[in-house]
Parts: sequence; structure tokens; C-alpha cells
Amino acid sequence: MTHPFDAAIQLEAGGQGLAGRTVPEYANMVGPFGGASAAALLRAVELHPERAGSPVALTVNFAAPIADGEFHIDTNLVRANRTNQHWTVSLHQGDGVMATATAVFGTRRDTWSDIEAQMPDVPAPESVERTPGPEGIRFLQNYDLRFVAGPPPVDGVARPSSTTTLWVRHDPVRDLDFSALAALSDIFYPRIFLRRGEPVPAGTISMTVYFHVEDAEVVGLGDDYVLATAAGQQFARGYFDQTAQLWSRDGALLVTSSQIVYYKYSFGG
Amino acid sequence: MTHPFDAAIQLEAGGQGLAGRTVPEYANMVGPFGGASAAALLRAVELHPERAGSPVALTVNFAAPIADGEFHIDTNLVRANRTNQHWTVSLHQGDGVMATATAVFGTRRDTWSDIEAQMPDVPAPESVERTPGPEGIRFLQNYDLRFVAGPPPVDGVARPSSTTTLWVRHDPVRDLDFSALAALSDIFYPRIFLRRGEPVPAGTISMTVYFHVEDAEVVGLGDDYVLATAAGQQFARGYFDQTAQLWSRDGALLVTSSQIVYYKYSFGG
Repeated sequence: MTHPFDAAIQLEAGGQGLAGRTVPEYANMVGPFGGASAAALLRAVELHPERAGSPVALTVNFAAPIADGEFHIDTNLVRANRTNQHWTVSLHQGDGVMATATAVFGTRRDTWSDIEAQMPDVPAPESVERTPGPEGIRFLQNYDLRFVAGPPPVDGVARPSSTTTLWVRHDPVRDLDFSALAALSDIFYPRIFLRRGEPVPAGTISMTVYFHVEDAEVVGLGDDYVLATAAGQQFARGYFDQTAQLWSRDGALLVTSSQIVYYKYSFGG
Repeated sequence: MTHPFDAAIQLEAGGQGLAGRTVPEYANMVGPFGGASAAALLRAVELHPERAGSPVALTVNFAAPIADGEFHIDTNLVRANRTNQHWTVSLHQGDGVMATATAVFGTRRDTWSDIEAQMPDVPAPESVERTPGPEGIRFLQNYDLRFVAGPPPVDGVARPSSTTTLWVRHDPVRDLDFSALAALSDIFYPRIFLRRGEPVPAGTISMTVYFHVEDAEVVGLGDDYVLATAAGQQFARGYFDQTAQLWSRDGALLVTSSQIVYYKYSFGG
């Protein structure tokens, strides 16, 4: 039995590049969950025979809404250096480019390391109540979401802070890997919802993910919860940014990421 | 008399795409200042006849050291939507791709907007002493740098914080534009220097810049100082990240950015 996330990022040689297919379990309101598409783009590089090292950086630009159904991914190794590789990637449907990406893969070495950021002070996931994924956003049914701060607002009250912090885990459970971390970097509902106190039409335009862990550390995470926290720095005339972190239970900063999001807010509703 | 920054990003039709040339005033220790290369990549899109709107997002991947001399930039409009455009860009020397970029341009609209981030509480630039650009890093001679926090360490003492905050302005003065803001997003010396208390070999691999202002606001900045602040969140086995903000004197958050940087630190020296 294939896990739905693995089905969502499953790629097979087909024509030019690799062929994949959206799955209903990872559907968003329109088209697939962007995080799953980002994960598929990353997976395409991981599957390439010339790939060396593990993911260091991934930027995905969502150029057009991906339709439900088949898609194709092309990968191009632009430059291979001694310790890192630069890739460009694109996701196509029919004649159209629906997403582009750049990825850096690299090798890591033992040297001085330190986590400077502070992990949010939160209770263990087991002592936080699970929030049911909202109706109509199918992919969220496939995550166990436990909000510590900034759950989706349902009262129409605008908040001064756009920070959301939650524990999140695949449901059904699944071991974490780089693709799963790429997807989790996009797990947050749009920050504008908190600032306006209500849902606002919004969509990610570009997302960048930096991976701070190597393969063995990711394997060591197993299928445990990850602490995800995000905030916006500025909401300006139709675009806001989001910075985010993913932490392990024991305080490893797995991923830092940022994204820029389109929003369309009309005063008075 | 052409300003050296304008010379550094000057592009002319030549063969395929656009041709530019590095200038000595924007030289780094090896090759040109990465911020100037990022600015040239952005400028290439700005010059394209099909460009619509102003920059929203720019990601530059530095694939290989750019040599002093001529370079070529190719731009490709991947997708044009009603309110935004997705571009891919590459910088070549000879047969090699030295940098790739993706850019999103878009139109902005009047709607609810808010700066959620806090501007650092700092004295005016006129009351902060100017730090001479260090010998051997030529491009810094072309910026007026006034450090409020986290100047380059010269005492060998490792700091617990990697935060640097400075006022910065072109010298000779020059009006700000999107290209200048792209370059300023990369004005910071490597964050690892503060954490180790000394220079450490390091280089930016990938940088992402989100622009939060539109043309008229950038014009309104004139040639004034910009407040630039940056910090690292994690230093892990040869790669650290940096998040940064650029603020106007009167408290507008102009740019938020992030980058991932390679470093090579040997214990005991």
C-alpha cells in the first residue's frame, strides 16, 4: 500500500524527463498542495543518476495553477562543483510551464556548527489537542495538526501578530525525508488570515527552503512530529512574505524557509 | 560620467541576450561583488521589452566564480499572468553557466497593507561614525558603511550573536533603484565571522530577495542611507543561512531577503 504522499511525489521515466500525477489525498482548494509539488520537484533531482550529496537549497516558483492529473518534470544539472551541484527544474502540463525551480545539492563536513535561532517554548505534541483539517482542503486531512499558537481564525477578529506555531505529522504516519520537509515548509495557511481575522484569497508565488540537516539526521527523525513556526514581516499592496522554521522535537533546526504570497483583500469584505 | 555601479550593471545587446562587463570598482576578493551580479541579472529582466510590472522576487544561485571581464545574460519569460510574470535568467562566461536566477515581476494594488516586523531602534546615520571599507575588498570602498551593531570582528573573540546592523549608502552617491536594493541585500560580510571572531572562508551559494515597494516609493528614497540588518539562524556542517532586511530612514521595510552560504572552518585556525 503506497502512502498517499509517496503517490503524490512518485515519478517515472516518461517521454522527456519524469512523469508524475496528482493524487486526491493531496488536493488543495484548487489543484494540488503546493508543498507536494515542491516535494515532487525536489524528488526529481534526487532521482537523477548524476545527483550527488543531499539538498541544501530549493526555490520553487509557482507560475500557474497545476491542474489535477499528469505532469512532467525536467531536470538540468547546470554546474557540478567539488562539493555542490546547481540544478534547474521545471514542471510542465501540456505545453505550459506550471512551476520552475532551482536546487542546490551538496556534501556536508564536520566542522564548527551551532543553532543560533531559539526554538519556540512549547508543550509536547501529545499534550496539545489535534485540530481537524478543515473541510474542503483535502491535503490537510493527511496531516496531524496540533496548533500551539495562531490557529486559523474563525471569529473575524484581526490579530496584531501573524505568527503560527504547530506540531505536524503525516497521517497516516510516514518517515520524514527531504521531500516531506520541503512539503512541510508550505504547511501554513496564509498569514494574512490572522492579520485580517478571516480567509482572504491568497497563493504562494515563490518559496525558498534551506535544509540544515544531512541524510542520517533526517532518517533519525523517523515519523515523529515536527514543530513548524511561521510569521510574515510585511504585507504590502497584494504581496506578503513569510519566514518559517521546522524544528525536531529535540531542538534541531531542520529547515528555514521563506515565501512570497499573493493576496487579494477588499476593504469591507 | 557613469557611476561605477551603473557601469557594473550596464548591459548591451550582444550575440544571444545581453552583454555586460565587470568593473574594478565592484571587485570582491575573487571576482565581482555577488550583489552586483545579482543586480545585473535583475537589470537584464528590467530591460526586456516584454517586462511588465516591477520586481517582486529574485533568487540568484551562484554556480561558479564569475571571472573579471565580459559576461552574457540570457532571459526567458516562462509565464505571463494577468498580474505577474515568471522569468528564468542565466549568466554565462564562455561555455559555462556562472549563475542562474529566477525572478517574479508583478503589479501592485492599493489594499490593506502593514509592516509587521520591527525596525531596529538605531541612531540616525549622521550620528554614526563611518567605517572605512577594508583594504583588499574593493567594492566596499564604493559604499558608505556606518555600523550600529556587529561590525566586522578584529579581535578574535567569538560572539554569541551573528546580527549586524548598519546604515549604508552609495559612495559616490547614487539614487536607489531595484538593482541597487538587490545589491544591498548582499552587503553583509559573512555571519560566521562574528560567531568565530575572525574571517573564515565563505561564499554565498543562493540568495533570495523579496521587494516590498513599488517604483514610486523607490524613487522617493533618492540617494539616502538604507538601514541593513542581518542574522544567521543556523550554522551547520559547512552551510549557514542569513535572513536580512533593508529599511528606509522613515521606517519602510523595503526588502526582506535570505541566503545560504558555504563556509570552511578549521578548528584551531
